[in-house]
Amino acid sequence: MSKIRIGIAGYGNLGKGVELALMQNPDMELAGIFTRRDPASLKPMTEGAKVYSLDDAEKHVNDVDVMILCGGSATDLPVQGPKLARLFNTIDSFDTHAKIPEHFANVDKAAKETNHVSVISVGWDPGLFSLNRLFGTCFLPDGKDYTFWGKGVSQGHSDAIRRIEGVADGKQYTIPVPEAIDAVRSGKNPELTTRQKHTRECFVVAKEGADKAKIEQEIKTMPNYFADYDTTVHFISQEELDRDHSGIPHGGFVIRSGQTGKNGETKHIIEYSLKLGSNPEFTSSVLVAYARAAARLAAEKSFGCKTVFDIAPAYLSPKSGEELRKTML
Amino acid sequence: MSKIRIGIAGYGNLGKGVELALMQNPDMELAGIFTRRDPASLKPMTEGAKVYSLDDAEKHVNDVDVMILCGGSATDLPVQGPKLARLFNTIDSFDTHAKIPEHFANVDKAAKETNHVSVISVGWDPGLFSLNRLFGTCFLPDGKDYTFWGKGVSQGHSDAIRRIEGVADGKQYTIPVPEAIDAVRSGKNPELTTRQKHTRECFVVAKEGADKAKIEQEIKTMPNYFADYDTTVHFISQEELDRDHSGIPHGGFVIRSGQTGKNGETKHIIEYSLKLGSNPEFTSSVLVAYARAAARLAAEKSFGCKTVFDIAPAYLSPKSGEELRKTML
Repeated sequence: MSKIRIGIAGYGNLGKGVELALMQNPDMELAGIFTRRDPASLKPMTEGAKVYSLDDAEKHVNDVDVMILCGGSATDLPVQGPKLARLFNTIDSFDTHAKIPEHFANVDKAAKETNHVSVISVGWDPGLFSLNRLFGTCFLPDGKDYTFWGKGVSQGHSDAIRRIEGVADGKQYTIPVPEAIDAVRSGKNPELTTRQKHTRECFVVAKEGADKAKIEQEIKTMPNYFADYDTTVHFISQEELDRDHSGIPHGGFVIRSGQTGKNGETKHIIEYSLKLGSNPEFTSSVLVAYARAAARLAAEKSFGCKTVFDIAPAYLSPKSGEELRKTML
Repeated sequence: MSKIRIGIAGYGNLGKGVELALMQNPDMELAGIFTRRDPASLKPMTEGAKVYSLDDAEKHVNDVDVMILCGGSATDLPVQGPKLARLFNTIDSFDTHAKIPEHFANVDKAAKETNHVSVISVGWDPGLFSLNRLFGTCFLPDGKDYTFWGKGVSQGHSDAIRRIEGVADGKQYTIPVPEAIDAVRSGKNPELTTRQKHTRECFVVAKEGADKAKIEQEIKTMPNYFADYDTTVHFISQEELDRDHSGIPHGGFVIRSGQTGKNGETKHIIEYSLKLGSNPEFTSSVLVAYARAAARLAAEKSFGCKTVFDIAPAYLSPKSGEELRKTML
């Protein structure tokens, strides 16, 4: 059987993660990396990897079975998603939850008009956490859903800190409150406020002579990002930040607490959790598994836009149905 | 939209669980209970529920959209599975792992020849745990799988105790070893023996005058069931057993410990766990969700035998794709 040929559109953390993930999946191969930068400036990890200008993507429609879009949700994917879905089967990790219906419609139109398969919003949230929210409500319809994130680095909150005057660098961790998780696990179905669910911890490098008290105050009162949370701010040196906080760990929990029985007297807890050493490396491993599914759905001519909800789990695996039933069921 | 009409074949713990689960799913209704006992002897919980002889099932092919088979895997399902798949779309919870390929082949033939959909081996293991083993290997191909069961009541082991001479009654709990789970969660990828993974705890009611030391010895050395485990035996009164051990709780953990990165330097843990107040009530809730999927697959004429691996998650939910994307993704 010939290998599934994967294109990578965008070579940041996520694109590099896809490149690494392909090395772990022998039924796939890297067809090329497509970048908006000067192709000569990229240093791929894969021996002999081809790098092309993203503008030339159209020339490679016959070399790529599935293109994995590794751009950002704010400005890249809303444009690239529909555009590349006209040329390739695609996977993206679009994660602006409120705009998913709009993105779905745009990508669906492009994919259907050109007979492609596109899977959007793949990753762990949206993605695996979404699956577990769905499973939870289906298996325990009388119940309550809880999603906790962390402990992990929030890129958006780290960026927000770095935009403050007097800040040279910084990193923010989102941390679930242990007492809140324990209360959920106990089956008490608590109502939890934003503040009760997560705390935020910031490691900040101040510029020389900057007013640290003012920076701390500005962080803690920042609307949307920090004002609704109990936030701790630590000032550290750039060396300490680089030494102790260079990773991008993340994770979280999806918990369904529900009841069955004639009067809801029987309690059940379903818990799904992730502890990820690297958010982009894990996310891209998930993208690659869904690329395998997209290649198969395209072979079956099941065109259009899909999400993780629409894909039978067996499509994610290189093993046959028979093998899966024998070894994993 | 008309409701999905569900038949229940077999009215033990699982059948009663299905009946309860239907009360929580307003898009479904109970079409009838089919029993091998005298139909007049059953006392359903659902007002106006119809009870039929299982021998008369054929007369009701037009009244039932999906038949949920609630018999046992040892002798009932191997016969009923293919037989009822010739008459109805079916769901079963066949859980003899080693015989799944054979059962699949038999049910698949029956379902395909008569244009029905059958989903076998539905529940939590096989079922949701299988799904999580599959997801784990797809998202972290370089890694290791661990399944722990419990704390919960094992019906098979409880039966084995009750067959010992001098035993009036008894119940067995399977308990995962906390140190083993911690070692797995730490990412150490330990090799664990049977004894290191689970312990067994037995609560036994001895008959008057029975030799307790002999009973304890017989339990602890019983091959397959107890000999490979550290087993604790407690002798208690029938009153204590009835008071403290009448429930059928269960649960467990599926943990995938894997690594990404060029040299596997980045560690990740995926953990799925269940804490179930009642094993049969939860299992039957899962059966009912897959019955919804079976009804839809039948409407699409996607006939034949399936497992949880073959079913797109969206089919389990009464909500539309649009609604799911908007509220759960």
